[in-house]
Amino acid sequence: MIATVIGLGLIGGSFALALKDKGLAERVIGVDNDPNHAAKALELGLVDEVLPLEAATEAADLIAIAIPVSAIPITAIKVLNHVRHQIVMDMGSTKEELCEVIAQHAKRNRFVATHPMWGTEYSGPEAAVKGAFSGRSVVICEREASDPEAVSMVEDIYHTLGMPIIYMEPEEHDLHAAYVSHISQVTSYALALTVLEKEREDETIFALAGGGFESTVRLAKSSGEMWIPILLKNKYNVLDVLREHIHQLQIMRRMIERDDAEGLRSAIGRANSIRRIIH
Amino acid sequence: MIATVIGLGLIGGSFALALKDKGLAERVIGVDNDPNHAAKALELGLVDEVLPLEAATEAADLIAIAIPVSAIPITAIKVLNHVRHQIVMDMGSTKEELCEVIAQHAKRNRFVATHPMWGTEYSGPEAAVKGAFSGRSVVICEREASDPEAVSMVEDIYHTLGMPIIYMEPEEHDLHAAYVSHISQVTSYALALTVLEKEREDETIFALAGGGFESTVRLAKSSGEMWIPILLKNKYNVLDVLREHIHQLQIMRRMIERDDAEGLRSAIGRANSIRRIIH
Repeated sequence: MIATVIGLGLIGGSFALALKDKGLAERVIGVDNDPNHAAKALELGLVDEVLPLEAATEAADLIAIAIPVSAIPITAIKVLNHVRHQIVMDMGSTKEELCEVIAQHAKRNRFVATHPMWGTEYSGPEAAVKGAFSGRSVVICEREASDPEAVSMVEDIYHTLGMPIIYMEPEEHDLHAAYVSHISQVTSYALALTVLEKEREDETIFALAGGGFESTVRLAKSSGEMWIPILLKNKYNVLDVLREHIHQLQIMRRMIERDDAEGLRSAIGRANSIRRIIH
Repeated sequence: MIATVIGLGLIGGSFALALKDKGLAERVIGVDNDPNHAAKALELGLVDEVLPLEAATEAADLIAIAIPVSAIPITAIKVLNHVRHQIVMDMGSTKEELCEVIAQHAKRNRFVATHPMWGTEYSGPEAAVKGAFSGRSVVICEREASDPEAVSMVEDIYHTLGMPIIYMEPEEHDLHAAYVSHISQVTSYALALTVLEKEREDETIFALAGGGFESTVRLAKSSGEMWIPILLKNKYNVLDVLREHIHQLQIMRRMIERDDAEGLRSAIGRANSIRRIIH
């Protein structure tokens, strides 16, 4: 198989590496708007050659789109316009608008909408890592809108990468993603800003930063170029979760203010039940 | 040296293990209010024997207090009341009240106030791990109030455990700890509660939970028994940070509401500079 990967950053670069590493593609063609990224991806061996979008689409059996979510719908349409037998998939973090935009395209059946639940706080071709994705879930949306043969090919790839597959409708996906991914990003950015704000008064404020801080603030290193489109495309879900999260913080604040150890015990007892979910 | 460790949970248990592992103590005596914890610590080999507080104090050269911060000041006084030549140290996460309470004790000079910046989200003797503390900082407060020989002994122990030592006044310590440790705990609990609240409507909400979520919510597994006293003892600092954090979240919320990509780009750009601090 010949694969084309559009967007050679963290996700696309890691996917290109995985396709070759697992023997899924003999050749991987890269496409990237940024010539520096394209050159870097070639230099790092993430892809075998770099071509313009149209040529890369025509030369491939599978085209994977791994660019910021704000650019996915239009790019998906452009790619589908050139498609004959090929299969097209995307790897973006929001699904509702994409599925709506491609719904009536004559080649909709050649498209598989996916979201592999993997990432790191780094970006660009240098962030691509071998062994990415393994053990993480992947969501496929609107499976019934894609040709069974197209879905099978994409499922086989994700199986080979060691990813359990979950099927969801786009609306359901975007809601879930807001709760278990997008909100973590917002709180992490806000926490970094809180402490950096204090640092302007007291430059030694980080002297004690340890493992707990690092864990909650790590995501604040993530690129705005990737995350701003996600937060804005998934705006209503993100705002809902953010409202609830601020409410929970205000409840804890009031309990601390009032020395309400009993209330804190009950709230923390409930929070502890997250142990069921993450081990 | 014979060491006594009071409180055989995550911190005390790991410290007892480290003292033996590094050859710093030939014998470690344990003290714990909870007979199940004491029995478990013996069974796990964290300590060589278990004694009541007074006997354990008298039998040891070094007494380390590793119990919830609400109980440290009184226990410190009780231990100091029995001290002749011994050195006493604590390992608690807040320092202001403790230093105030012991300030005028006749044996204040035998006490070293410390806070090793290490922990995990687990608790109890089973949470004790070999190799804990290594590479993390430790704070020593009011060094000048302790005998130089007592400070030296404690410094030697922490050096042997591979911990860089930072000297701070208690007020400064508590402020810093609120910013880079205690707030992470509060946001993590609140985030867990936010998502668990949603789970009551939609029980599959966690289907997509991945690495980013796990990282920001991991601390929500931590025990209230340890953390409630910390949040309440460090109440004013924690409330200040919490106020600023909620303010930062509200700013991000408004920018998302208004599709203010430019504002988000600037805020996230500033948040990204946390890369200077955590690598």
